[in-house]
Amino acid sequence: MSENWKYSHRAVAMKSNVIREILKITKKPGVISFGGGLPAPELFPAEQLLEACKKVLREQPENALQYGTTEGYPPLRELIAGRMNNIGVPCHPDEILITSGSQQGLDVLGRVFLDTDSTVLLSKPTYLGAIQAFNAYGPRYLTLPSDDDGMTVDGMEELIRENSPRLIYLVPTFQNPDGRTIPMSRRKVIIDLAAKYGVPIIEDDPYSELSFDSEVPDHLRKMFPEGVILLGTFSKLLAPGLRIAWLIAPKGLAYDRCVRLKQGSDLHTNTFAQHVIYQFLKTGALDSHLEKIRKVYARRKDLMVKLMREHFPEGVSFTEPDGGLFLWVTLPEKINTTELLPKAVDRKIAYIPGSAFYTDGGGQNTMRLNYSKPTEEEIKIGIPRLAELFAEALNA
Amino acid sequence: MSENWKYSHRAVAMKSNVIREILKITKKPGVISFGGGLPAPELFPAEQLLEACKKVLREQPENALQYGTTEGYPPLRELIAGRMNNIGVPCHPDEILITSGSQQGLDVLGRVFLDTDSTVLLSKPTYLGAIQAFNAYGPRYLTLPSDDDGMTVDGMEELIRENSPRLIYLVPTFQNPDGRTIPMSRRKVIIDLAAKYGVPIIEDDPYSELSFDSEVPDHLRKMFPEGVILLGTFSKLLAPGLRIAWLIAPKGLAYDRCVRLKQGSDLHTNTFAQHVIYQFLKTGALDSHLEKIRKVYARRKDLMVKLMREHFPEGVSFTEPDGGLFLWVTLPEKINTTELLPKAVDRKIAYIPGSAFYTDGGGQNTMRLNYSKPTEEEIKIGIPRLAELFAEALNA
Repeated sequence: MSENWKYSHRAVAMKSNVIREILKITKKPGVISFGGGLPAPELFPAEQLLEACKKVLREQPENALQYGTTEGYPPLRELIAGRMNNIGVPCHPDEILITSGSQQGLDVLGRVFLDTDSTVLLSKPTYLGAIQAFNAYGPRYLTLPSDDDGMTVDGMEELIRENSPRLIYLVPTFQNPDGRTIPMSRRKVIIDLAAKYGVPIIEDDPYSELSFDSEVPDHLRKMFPEGVILLGTFSKLLAPGLRIAWLIAPKGLAYDRCVRLKQGSDLHTNTFAQHVIYQFLKTGALDSHLEKIRKVYARRKDLMVKLMREHFPEGVSFTEPDGGLFLWVTLPEKINTTELLPKAVDRKIAYIPGSAFYTDGGGQNTMRLNYSKPTEEEIKIGIPRLAELFAEALNA
Repeated sequence: MSENWKYSHRAVAMKSNVIREILKITKKPGVISFGGGLPAPELFPAEQLLEACKKVLREQPENALQYGTTEGYPPLRELIAGRMNNIGVPCHPDEILITSGSQQGLDVLGRVFLDTDSTVLLSKPTYLGAIQAFNAYGPRYLTLPSDDDGMTVDGMEELIRENSPRLIYLVPTFQNPDGRTIPMSRRKVIIDLAAKYGVPIIEDDPYSELSFDSEVPDHLRKMFPEGVILLGTFSKLLAPGLRIAWLIAPKGLAYDRCVRLKQGSDLHTNTFAQHVIYQFLKTGALDSHLEKIRKVYARRKDLMVKLMREHFPEGVSFTEPDGGLFLWVTLPEKINTTELLPKAVDRKIAYIPGSAFYTDGGGQNTMRLNYSKPTEEEIKIGIPRLAELFAEALNA
């Protein structure tokens, strides 16, 4: 019966998220995975979250279990606004919309801004989930290549002038997938162009609070509050399973449209999780938790980089991020990392082929490696294994 | 700046959900609201949910707080499949997709099936949230009027033959907004036509387990498993703030497409809430909770109907549902319930104007009343007040 049903164009065109499919394969026992983008689960502050649950369910069960407003739980929005202001990002609670993960923030922005054949300007490589969210609305992509400082800006003005993109999408700090950060000078160029041509910038910012040892450049939203929509999330700071993130949009048209279009898609985000995170934040426990995970992730990254230097064959280069969850490996051009993956899985090791992060089929000789989830023990075993695989492929 | 941004056609066209806007107004202290569709918050099983939280956070924090699969937490899907099979609805865990409320189920189905100008067949009145979800994808609606047995089927075959709808959308049991239930004879006609013309039926079923005293007719999914997509939810059975619902679609094309398009929209539903509901269900506590809320809602409905009989002026009729959360009032044609609402709010009483549930501007003289949220005390004060308002309007 259902074989005869007619589906939308988008449903027929839509492919599954490569990463999530690879993660399914690599979940086999014994595989050391550098593939996912998962926080270290052994560090989740479970006991403190349980204290928050107790407080919520004993003191406010009638609100915490009931329908809520689309905008989100007001005290949580106030608390987030306070945190953002503390790190120098101007925003008012009324500009904050709580979303079910930043993935939903991306979906809402696609809904609000994109029609079929609208254009979106982004870097290559860029975050795969953004592409997947936007694809539901049928846009075309304008891409600019990256160097060590993230998205390059040569030719950006021409691209904008000729195509009038509806959106500029950026992960400016410790970008997923490559860990690169766009410096201030380049941020200024991007903002000037966005202002000149009236194009909204999406500043997707899951990682800036996961900086290991250096100051991060100012948020785009700080430099240009009326022209930037910021996405923040507790997924990487606290726990992704709670699916609580936020979108900051200029009050008025943009914010109101985000609220309305989220309303049609899920009414509102989980009330209980919003209350629990609010109670957790109120105790101040997030700051000490962040301090802890920053240290652990920095140590894992350092170990990984050290082992990569020692073991990777000549001709293999990689980024050395000062924060976030990922680094980026570039192999000689003759190596295709998608074709190499089954051999890696045979050796019980996994990564994400870099081409997943390109909208135009590039990046065949690159890969993304995650250092937040694997333990030091796993890194010590996994990186030499990966190096062996590279050597073998290069000598083949 | 953001005033110059360009928005999608859907964002420019989309209006806010009338109900949610009205609910904001009527949240003022002292207003007795028959407007919302909220479960009785004083009955939420908070202590038992806290026990579930303890179990989850002490025994499985690493899974419950981490990213999960798009399909949903496998043990919860198994448990739901078991419950569905127990009430006579055939389904396999692999056909179940966990969604963030049934609203997201509707959104996912809109994504999967609708292009601009696709048609959807539904009754008038019908559930407003479905219209709002589908509207994001730009369809047109084919409507059939309702009688005491819900959607009528005269002319249905012609409508289908001439328009080839992509979907038939129904709330066949205790429909929101009118509390009506489609009897078996009519269900058979609908299924025969859906089978003959290959049109998927969405069976939106939040209320069938909230039956007060009678057997409900068989689920459409039971009668025609390969042709029906069923939406079920814990929002009305347990707590809407947890945002956990499920979609049952035939395995293969339909199911796989639902999974992929949900993936782009929020990766997956709140893992923690899925674990908590699973632990709660495992204790068997849902059955006794359902018994309790059925009794309370039935008593409130009976009281409301009794008072309506006593107080409502001649010429005002209403449905008397055997389950669910809503009843439907029809006034003489000269009364416009949208225009009457401000006067109701002045008297500190609220309802939802029936026209909100029509896609074509009908139902001006109707309204939806909710009996799950207001207490008996509030019903005793509120219904006579509403009756006075009617009398005044009829004599004006």
